[in-house]
Amino acid sequence: MKGSRAKGHRRFQCIGLVAKISPTALRLTAALERALSRRGLEVIYDGDTARAMGRNRGVQRGRIARLADLVFVLGGDGTLLSVAREAPRTTPVLGINVGALGYLTGLTQREALARLDEVLTGGFREDRRRRLDVSITEGANRGTYRALNDAVLNREAIGRISTFTISIEGRSIARFRGDGVIVATPTGSTAYSLSAGGPILDPALAAVVVTPISPHALTQRPIVVPASTTVGLKVIGRKRQDGVHLTLDGQARFAIPPGCLIEVRESASPVTLLRPPESDNFHNLAEKLNWGV
Amino acid sequence: MKGSRAKGHRRFQCIGLVAKISPTALRLTAALERALSRRGLEVIYDGDTARAMGRNRGVQRGRIARLADLVFVLGGDGTLLSVAREAPRTTPVLGINVGALGYLTGLTQREALARLDEVLTGGFREDRRRRLDVSITEGANRGTYRALNDAVLNREAIGRISTFTISIEGRSIARFRGDGVIVATPTGSTAYSLSAGGPILDPALAAVVVTPISPHALTQRPIVVPASTTVGLKVIGRKRQDGVHLTLDGQARFAIPPGCLIEVRESASPVTLLRPPESDNFHNLAEKLNWGV
Amino acid sequence: MKGSRAKGHRRFQCIGLVAKISPTALRLTAALERALSRRGLEVIYDGDTARAMGRNRGVQRGRIARLADLVFVLGGDGTLLSVAREAPRTTPVLGINVGALGYLTGLTQREALARLDEVLTGGFREDRRRRLDVSITEGANRGTYRALNDAVLNREAIGRISTFTISIEGRSIARFRGDGVIVATPTGSTAYSLSAGGPILDPALAAVVVTPISPHALTQRPIVVPASTTVGLKVIGRKRQDGVHLTLDGQARFAIPPGCLIEVRESASPVTLLRPPESDNFHNLAEKLNWGV
Amino acid sequence: MKGSRAKGHRRFQCIGLVAKISPTALRLTAALERALSRRGLEVIYDGDTARAMGRNRGVQRGRIARLADLVFVLGGDGTLLSVAREAPRTTPVLGINVGALGYLTGLTQREALARLDEVLTGGFREDRRRRLDVSITEGANRGTYRALNDAVLNREAIGRISTFTISIEGRSIARFRGDGVIVATPTGSTAYSLSAGGPILDPALAAVVVTPISPHALTQRPIVVPASTTVGLKVIGRKRQDGVHLTLDGQARFAIPPGCLIEVRESASPVTLLRPPESDNFHNLAEKLNWGV
Repeated sequence: MKGSRAKGHRRFQCIGLVAKISPTALRLTAALERALSRRGLEVIYDGDTARAMGRNRGVQRGRIARLADLVFVLGGDGTLLSVAREAPRTTPVLGINVGALGYLTGLTQREALARLDEVLTGGFREDRRRRLDVSITEGANRGTYRALNDAVLNREAIGRISTFTISIEGRSIARFRGDGVIVATPTGSTAYSLSAGGPILDPALAAVVVTPISPHALTQRPIVVPASTTVGLKVIGRKRQDGVHLTLDGQARFAIPPGCLIEVRESASPVTLLRPPESDNFHNLAEKLNWGV
Repeated sequence: MKGSRAKGHRRFQCIGLVAKISPTALRLTAALERALSRRGLEVIYDGDTARAMGRNRGVQRGRIARLADLVFVLGGDGTLLSVAREAPRTTPVLGINVGALGYLTGLTQREALARLDEVLTGGFREDRRRRLDVSITEGANRGTYRALNDAVLNREAIGRISTFTISIEGRSIARFRGDGVIVATPTGSTAYSLSAGGPILDPALAAVVVTPISPHALTQRPIVVPASTTVGLKVIGRKRQDGVHLTLDGQARFAIPPGCLIEVRESASPVTLLRPPESDNFHNLAEKLNWGV
Repeated sequence: MKGSRAKGHRRFQCIGLVAKISPTALRLTAALERALSRRGLEVIYDGDTARAMGRNRGVQRGRIARLADLVFVLGGDGTLLSVAREAPRTTPVLGINVGALGYLTGLTQREALARLDEVLTGGFREDRRRRLDVSITEGANRGTYRALNDAVLNREAIGRISTFTISIEGRSIARFRGDGVIVATPTGSTAYSLSAGGPILDPALAAVVVTPISPHALTQRPIVVPASTTVGLKVIGRKRQDGVHLTLDGQARFAIPPGCLIEVRESASPVTLLRPPESDNFHNLAEKLNWGV
Repeated sequence: MKGSRAKGHRRFQCIGLVAKISPTALRLTAALERALSRRGLEVIYDGDTARAMGRNRGVQRGRIARLADLVFVLGGDGTLLSVAREAPRTTPVLGINVGALGYLTGLTQREALARLDEVLTGGFREDRRRRLDVSITEGANRGTYRALNDAVLNREAIGRISTFTISIEGRSIARFRGDGVIVATPTGSTAYSLSAGGPILDPALAAVVVTPISPHALTQRPIVVPASTTVGLKVIGRKRQDGVHLTLDGQARFAIPPGCLIEVRESASPVTLLRPPESDNFHNLAEKLNWGV
């Protein structure tokens, strides 16, 4: 299905709009709403956007993609992640880049209105991106959560000695001291993991990268494993004065009991991002990283 | 088939012996030959080993695995690579570590005789490792060659400015200045690519890593792509006084015309290494890299 | 004065003892106390060690080197740092390595008693190590503090976007997004800064290294500046929900108001570590880092 | 003397002109020559520039700075290095950036004529840059040579196992396997050494950085030592089929007998580069590396 065209017009009846709260983004949101209404489509907002637009109700951001047939996100990668993390596979999400560098967004602000019909008639490419299912196995935040970019386990106080363990399919493969550990999807490989020294993963690759953060031993290197693998992470150690946290996509943050096992595996459900038909993933990458071309 | 036990005794009639030329390795080779002869098995040597053992003929090292049913290699990873690069999938290769660190070897020198029957009766695990088919598309060395660890394209004079291009499936994704570029298999990811800043790839992962060597632009990072991808490499530039070389597994070296396209793709034929049944790939990795455990 | 022999016996009348709280360290502490008392020397303890030894009083750890003429520290680098950070230049500190890898320690556990007289008669080399004066310029923790290894500015939540600025002599030279920034002495260059990608500085070099932690832009690299330079650090940004912290030697941690300028400069007062006369700094380094030899 | 203004007009009677052979550079060279002649100054060329300009004689590039009172270099950093490597301290060199990124150049092409009188009347800042004296102690190329950026010792075939040793003041501190080793000045720290993972050194710092190239052991890290230190480098190993080379500033290349000791120390003679009075070294650095600001 990868790269297939979205099915025809009838598919999209209800359009979700999520915007970063900035004058530019809100102006474009208003213009989009008018254009969508003129086409007889229903528009819904998430709570923050609704408030900023002076509308009387919005839905939860985490739920908007369940209620709409298509979601437009106006902002940068951060805003897009907040929607794409939870969107069902069947609801495409289109990022419109407003005011920030957006690697995941599909359209610039200038193109948004001009290419609206192309989007609504299914002319855009569906770019499926793998996500992670991240399980906290103990404590108050026990449960399974989703991430599009990465899951990061760390202790609050960086630069202090904490010991982390990494297991693959239940078998311990590493024990190291450092600031934390990242498990990133190909999409997330160009985000935090890259800053911590990780490689770039081709979005077509069924893999995750496990990247230690500032490891004490220089031999601890990023390791790339099949996406089908279950990666287990733990912070061990006796001192409990500092909190241990799990952070998803740099946004959702959970306190973790010390010693609690975190399990990360590929989610059965990818997210569907819309991209212009002429785009390709390496082009985006090359631009972002100045990989010449 | 991965990890399946080798089939029964009858399989191995002719055993190849290849040794590093050192007193220890040759002593163990003589002992192995006696033990194999006592069991009624035929023994053949490659040329170098034959000469060092005072035998009157040996076969080409590149061909020994085509003639034997099983090859023992006594030495370190370098000696093993020289056999494993060309071995057909159907001839298992067992490395016996003599005198050097051996990541690919399956037995220590001390275990070799004690576990011989276990090996000969198919008690060892077959560890299939992906190889690369590397095509030189022009010039005197035109042809397709095999590599187990890596293919490296570089100019002779390091530290001088050369420009390299990388393409994926024929589409240019990077142009950078630096010393060279490496394409490594998961097996090779812990060799030269690691020294150049590449990640570790799980041997189970169907991927290769493309690692720039000392790139001028710090944004040029290793990139991991599916093994099914064809990676194209080129050196461009006007100055021709320095030679351009392609090196396979750090051993086979070919002069390349400037501007010549090198194409690298996964070989349809993996090599079969024998490992003790109790071993596992991450254990080896952990040991080599001191990934604690 | 570097490397000069400590002056004669008369110098040391009062010896401070600081130990990690472990059975081995405390046993050795008791033996040292007996040996020192037999030689007619006065022994004082810090509070923690006194309690663990069942003595009825100790002095503050930060003050023990002001009261004693010489301090023995029994433990690893962490325990040594807790004394050496505040010790006056005129009180030598000798680390005795108990139970952990100690790069800064001067004697092994086994040598401690055997070489006691050599130490007390000034036979050991005085190894002066530069320290930092670190000023918090605003808020409740306003003041100037000392560090032997490093000063680290960071936000609590790693992996989130924070913006740091670095200035040299009041002139802004960098603005980057990342997890934090380290200023390390040559002594500290082999600790946290190394994990974050910094170089090793020869202890003889009058320099500090400024190392960004997981910088978003890959072009942000460690920079080495003269020790006489004042380095200014700041976290900027609007979101205040996460705390900003300054951590000295991985031990002393201070909450910082967002936007507060931190100034780091070489302290006029180095610490004096005692080392065996036969030791040399590169030997220690080579051992720690496995720089072959 | 650092940063002092050049002394008055009378100082410069004979001006050297060295240009990259490109239409733009040669056009500007012709314009500069006319402007200098109008001011009654003598102009001399190096051989290549003379030929390209159709003049009947030029002097050796390595000698032009000995014959002139001031040298203008029109090109990028490469052309500038070819002059600055050998220039006596008393002859300032001014780089005019033509067509390439120039970190060492002092003026853009557009400013060259407009600011000519400011240069000739001593209005430019003198930026003294440390150089290296590099001694080849054996063989046909025995002698001492100068470098402004770096000295690189390597074997021809990268990716093959070669063993290098590094000594400081005659004492061995490291033995590692890899592609080579770089000794760089602060000026050279942003060139090849940076690509190989080295830190940036403030030009004011009296230090050199020793950077291993693709070291086999990940614990081999760049090390920064005082400029007054003598660094010794050697390639050891039995296989002699590949040539060993020493390369200075990426330009001058010498064959070296295997096992030959190379000694690198700070030259007593720095080079004097001219810079606009408003410039500062960190500004240049920030621009080159995109250190934000």
